Amino acid sequence: MLALLLATAVGVGSASAQTPAPASPASAAAPAVKEDFKPSSLNQPGQEYPQVNSQGYVRFRVVAPDAKSVRASLGLGGRGGTTLTKGADGVWVGTSEGPLDEGFHYYHLNVDGGTFNDPGALNFYGGVRWESGIEIPAHDADFYALKNVPHGNVQQILFPSPSTNTSRRAFVYTPPGYDKNQSTRYPVLYLQHGWGEDETAWSNQGHANLIMDNLIAAGKTRPFIIVMTYGMTNDARPGAINSFDIKPFQTVLINELIPYVDANFRTLADQPHRAMAGLSMGGFETKAIAPKNLDKFSHIGLLSGGTFSMEDVNSTPGFKDKVKLVFVSYGSKELSGGNARAPANGAPRPDPKANAEALKAAGLNSVFYVSPDTAHEFLSWRRSLYQMAPLMFRD
Amino acid sequence: MLALLLATAVGVGSASAQTPAPASPASAAAPAVKEDFKPSSLNQPGQEYPQVNSQGYVRFRVVAPDAKSVRASLGLGGRGGTTLTKGADGVWVGTSEGPLDEGFHYYHLNVDGGTFNDPGALNFYGGVRWESGIEIPAHDADFYALKNVPHGNVQQILFPSPSTNTSRRAFVYTPPGYDKNQSTRYPVLYLQHGWGEDETAWSNQGHANLIMDNLIAAGKTRPFIIVMTYGMTNDARPGAINSFDIKPFQTVLINELIPYVDANFRTLADQPHRAMAGLSMGGFETKAIAPKNLDKFSHIGLLSGGTFSMEDVNSTPGFKDKVKLVFVSYGSKELSGGNARAPANGAPRPDPKANAEALKAAGLNSVFYVSPDTAHEFLSWRRSLYQMAPLMFRD
Repeated sequence: MLALLLATAVGVGSASAQTPAPASPASAAAPAVKEDFKPSSLNQPGQEYPQVNSQGYVRFRVVAPDAKSVRASLGLGGRGGTTLTKGADGVWVGTSEGPLDEGFHYYHLNVDGGTFNDPGALNFYGGVRWESGIEIPAHDADFYALKNVPHGNVQQILFPSPSTNTSRRAFVYTPPGYDKNQSTRYPVLYLQHGWGEDETAWSNQGHANLIMDNLIAAGKTRPFIIVMTYGMTNDARPGAINSFDIKPFQTVLINELIPYVDANFRTLADQPHRAMAGLSMGGFETKAIAPKNLDKFSHIGLLSGGTFSMEDVNSTPGFKDKVKLVFVSYGSKELSGGNARAPANGAPRPDPKANAEALKAAGLNSVFYVSPDTAHEFLSWRRSLYQMAPLMFRD
Repeated sequence: MLALLLATAVGVGSASAQTPAPASPASAAAPAVKEDFKPSSLNQPGQEYPQVNSQGYVRFRVVAPDAKSVRASLGLGGRGGTTLTKGADGVWVGTSEGPLDEGFHYYHLNVDGGTFNDPGALNFYGGVRWESGIEIPAHDADFYALKNVPHGNVQQILFPSPSTNTSRRAFVYTPPGYDKNQSTRYPVLYLQHGWGEDETAWSNQGHANLIMDNLIAAGKTRPFIIVMTYGMTNDARPGAINSFDIKPFQTVLINELIPYVDANFRTLADQPHRAMAGLSMGGFETKAIAPKNLDKFSHIGLLSGGTFSMEDVNSTPGFKDKVKLVFVSYGSKELSGGNARAPANGAPRPDPKANAEALKAAGLNSVFYVSPDTAHEFLSWRRSLYQMAPLMFRD
């Protein structure tokens, strides 16, 4: 819900280098860094830095004249870091050692041993803090771009939660025309964020609303409502799914949020028209909740967040009859790089593709998607939503 | 639209000092700083600092072990600054010299000559950047507290704007029951932020939605819709209203936003049921637009943003017949401290109270409100909305 939705998208600049940088002596074969840097599309209004070039390199610039050291947490591929150097003008500048992956990255600065955000960049909730964000323009960015098409709305709701004794927050995407088509009722997807994130992630970082607007305008998906709330995941350590107690969130979702949404929005309030999906730890939550509540959910999506094996299917009464879609996706670098999560109990790492094929062979509507050249980051999940939405609620 | 709406309000702590600080030798009469500091209600999740005590003092704590100097921009009353001192553990700590005014304050850190946000605090758009925010619990905070009452929703809309060749963003508050009462149509208030802020300010900093929820639950105001969009003010220097061109924003508001809202929400789409108000530069915008569009607006509010004189009224055709409310407010410290804006042309500073009384004597529904013990800050404007809303649309 930040200013980013108004920001002009940064186009990939001219490929001609204006001021070719000398090749690094240590790796003479490395391509020159092209001097066509432009402000990131996720900068605060009027801020020139950080910048991104047409190759995906990032250049940071931070004013802190009396600092001893300034470092950005973002480097080659999106990991590592970039050390900034102080110029004669007292300003710290640094360029990433290599290009970053396309898409969205969280980062922060280390200034004299303290963690601060980049004053040039907008903030996004991830890693259990409001982090700085930067966007490396993706070659396929058109599918989540702000275009001149009818737009749905994203609204904040505060729903009563007796089990946690407070009003809890969710964001609800309603498709274009929702307010005008007073006789139309819509299916609903409950869509969860990952560990360290919160209910703002899917609209801020994920552009879920723009992805849906564009799909609907192109006639590629049935219009539906998306509900995004906080998964109560951040008390768990990353990856500690086995010690994470799903019950408090399941109570909020099943007993409190779903009835509230069905009472206050024009939903199709039945199992065939209700889906649950999530990214990373939100995928684990989906797998923990949806199969045990097949009277509620018919479509299930795990985005970089686990897979369904035939053992899962066979041990879940009614799965084959009641589940109309099992969508599983990963970023290609998660699969190749060993980042697909191994079970904490030491069992062999599941092969998500083989699992998906086994389900398909057993007659289930099983779809497996791999996002090219992305890791455990938001471009994988934007693309996954774009692939998954058209497969939902096709009755 | 940040996490603050879920945050537990910080209660004013016990008045008994647990560890009384020694009185400052320089001012022996100054009261001791009570050691009952608690995390600000606007901290990021899980963050212990900044903290506020029951007297309104603020304590900052920043980790930056290798820094040479750390300073917070917030000090006595909300102005000045606080210098932090590095302890033996390498952590910087500092307490404001005196208590701050009740309510919301923007601030930032200066670390070794650079401007950074406090990593402990949530961010709010003001001063043409995402600033850190802190809340000094107000004695009357109940009127904007998150309570167990029916809640309206705040939704982001993206409306087409041919005049600026983009989709522009607004936030729309719809009152509780809006989605259920399909036959009910509602009046609309167009509510503007101040210079350096944007369309997020009235819900994030202002709690406009909670103020309305509480008023409606108490039966004190007619339920109405509030529309908040960006006033395009930030290209103007602060106070440079005379060189600010109102036309581009007037075109967006009158020709684009109002027709979109009337087409997409269940509004009462006529002059008697449409209001415009704004704070600070948003008040100047209101005064520049509403009187010239009295076929559109019947209720007008200027919050710390100018006044209407009888000369204004007499020079505006139809004002006396068509305007059903003129609401003008200031924080008391603006009036006493000389902060009420003087005309740039050197004319004598208008007396807003005398102006309001003159309008009332002339038969207009003129209401003047002064927020006790607040300056040009958001508690003045929260209170002003609380006072103004019940006076609107009383037909």
